[in-house]
Amino acid sequence: MLVLGIDPGTAVTGYGLVRRDQNSKTGPAGIGMRLIECGVIRTKPRDPLAARLREIHQGVSELISRHKPDHLAVEDVFYSRNVRTTLALGHARGVILLAGEIAGLSIHEYPPAEVKKAIAGTGSATKEQVQFMLTRLLRLKAAPEPADASDGVAAAVTYMLTAHMAAITNGAHNAARTGRPAR
Amino acid sequence: MLVLGIDPGTAVTGYGLVRRDQNSKTGPAGIGMRLIECGVIRTKPRDPLAARLREIHQGVSELISRHKPDHLAVEDVFYSRNVRTTLALGHARGVILLAGEIAGLSIHEYPPAEVKKAIAGTGSATKEQVQFMLTRLLRLKAAPEPADASDGVAAAVTYMLTAHMAAITNGAHNAARTGRPAR
Repeated sequence: MLVLGIDPGTAVTGYGLVRRDQNSKTGPAGIGMRLIECGVIRTKPRDPLAARLREIHQGVSELISRHKPDHLAVEDVFYSRNVRTTLALGHARGVILLAGEIAGLSIHEYPPAEVKKAIAGTGSATKEQVQFMLTRLLRLKAAPEPADASDGVAAAVTYMLTAHMAAITNGAHNAARTGRPAR
Repeated sequence: MLVLGIDPGTAVTGYGLVRRDQNSKTGPAGIGMRLIECGVIRTKPRDPLAARLREIHQGVSELISRHKPDHLAVEDVFYSRNVRTTLALGHARGVILLAGEIAGLSIHEYPPAEVKKAIAGTGSATKEQVQFMLTRLLRLKAAPEPADASDGVAAAVTYMLTAHMAAITNGAHNAARTGRPAR
């Protein structure tokens, strides 16, 4: 199972592709994950907004057609930023969600606090704490580079962890219902 | 010359197609215009955001391929609305601008106050004043229906009027420079 995680931005959109690895040694979260690729889609501030949106849309669409992920995990926007920034981010998120929808991916959106909580255990974790945990969870030698890419990777890992937790919870529910032990 | 005007919304996106009519009797603004079509693209509030964005994007793309407009005029967003609404509108605007950019249209964005000023002479004009002027400018028997479509028509007319004014101003500048009368 492959997940494309995205942290949207009009200037810099970070992404990370993370694969659930059934065969690898189970990681610290009780789930094997491997970082396949990460990076950023950059647009020029001088270009018109519509041209920048097209670059973001095409960049994400190309990642999808090259890697064929099953899920798209997109970080939500801080509502507390200034309204102009929020609006611009909304434009970028719009064309990213569209790319996932056109490709038929299952789409998941996570507010920043939820990403932090899933990865570092608390919604108020610092960027450094999140990066430290990402490095451990993915068995990397250093945090994903560039820094903007790291937030895309974090979104993908959030999907992995929450889907894993949901599976465990469902298993426990089923065990309680059927009397058979959860797997 | 044909202009597609759009008033973006996640629930209802209004649109209007207005043609500059060189042969028709000149209207009250010194420019002949004809309303070709207007309407709305509606999405279901229960559908996931990504699915609604796809419907809006496809709806606008279909209008473009059916009518082949030269320009896309998109109304900007009120920054004063609540941030959540602004963010959702940003998503819708993003996929609309993308549709115009992919089709190679020239794209123009107008804040609501600029639309009101161009059409009714003042940025603080009421909705009724704008609709009254639209009806006169386009020689209609009544304001464009439904009401949401009317804002899309207004965006298209704003492009017509501002492009017309710019042409007059340029003509006057050239006349001042060359000594020949402006046409």
